[in-house]
Amino acid sequence: MSTTTSTIATAAPEHFTPVPLDKAYRLLNHGPTVLVSAAHAGQHNVMAAAWACALDFAPPKVTLVLDKATRTRELVEASGEFALQLPTVPMAAMTVAIGTDSAKTHPDKLQQHGVPLFHAPSHASTHISTHIPLVHGCAAWLLCRVIPEPHNQQTYDLFIGEVVAAWADERVFRHGHWEFDTAPDALRTLHYVAGGQFYATGTSVRV
Amino acid sequence: MSTTTSTIATAAPEHFTPVPLDKAYRLLNHGPTVLVSAAHAGQHNVMAAAWACALDFAPPKVTLVLDKATRTRELVEASGEFALQLPTVPMAAMTVAIGTDSAKTHPDKLQQHGVPLFHAPSHASTHISTHIPLVHGCAAWLLCRVIPEPHNQQTYDLFIGEVVAAWADERVFRHGHWEFDTAPDALRTLHYVAGGQFYATGTSVRV
Repeated sequence: MSTTTSTIATAAPEHFTPVPLDKAYRLLNHGPTVLVSAAHAGQHNVMAAAWACALDFAPPKVTLVLDKATRTRELVEASGEFALQLPTVPMAAMTVAIGTDSAKTHPDKLQQHGVPLFHAPSHASTHISTHIPLVHGCAAWLLCRVIPEPHNQQTYDLFIGEVVAAWADERVFRHGHWEFDTAPDALRTLHYVAGGQFYATGTSVRV
Repeated sequence: MSTTTSTIATAAPEHFTPVPLDKAYRLLNHGPTVLVSAAHAGQHNVMAAAWACALDFAPPKVTLVLDKATRTRELVEASGEFALQLPTVPMAAMTVAIGTDSAKTHPDKLQQHGVPLFHAPSHASTHISTHIPLVHGCAAWLLCRVIPEPHNQQTYDLFIGEVVAAWADERVFRHGHWEFDTAPDALRTLHYVAGGQFYATGTSVRV
């Protein structure tokens, strides 16, 4: 199996800001499509996934469906870690591309599709390797540790993760709230349907 | 425990149209907030849930998080059935109300909040009781049979269901595709964040 290689920057993006863990569920609550990153033994990969969901508030947990055919799943199972991140509207084509091409058949898919990566900040308290690459341009990032549930993983391709660190672009998520209506439209997140079609996160509806 | 009562109509809404099961995952793919209906032994209830997600294509499966404190969960566990349905923008206040008030403390919550119900059509092939009430005004409805997973249910409040029938409002989902941009805006679905705030499903982004 080929190594997936691409350059990983060390500097985080300009507006990359920590999100308190008790607010992390809000990053996924509106049902966005995610990119899933994982790394193990010097290899890393990123794929797209429509089926990620919040599972608990505190400690925050998530569910994630990862097909057995994917390279990312192998890395998640080997490392026990993954990152979820929320691609934005300008990243729609990249999201479809890295969700369609597998690193198993396209070992250079991240370079080919120009996926800009940076390393997650070191978080000693989380016992996460911090070798997981994150994707530039996303609206939010969640670093997760797998809670092993072999029956779910084998039977349903369903993984459960505890969120151990989270960040967001402070222009669009601040003080624990999404601010899509006042942030640049390019920071709106994506909701996948099928066949290369998404809906952007729309207008705010307050009750 | 009090019986939750409210009038249930027998006629389905005008634009209520079957969705082929192999397209049912698309109803949830964009991550909408859902209403969860359940019925057992002459009682029924409806609650709101932000944490529902597609799990498989064929047969279509879903995950759903149901807190142990809810009346709806008791009905789901007793009957082995539930319905998911996608509330639309004009239903935002009702969605918050029936997600906040519990039938345990507000046994008349459905009447109090004016939740208009109708019976799901009879589907003999699905072996579903068809006593589950569905909510008028939604964009789509999915009838599900619980796949019992006691460990997930107890440990994570996580339920897995197989979708056995699905319908949509044909003005907004037709030929297997959402058509939010050409349908009336009042048919856009909701994505919950927190504190009574949603985002509507936004504009189409095609790759």
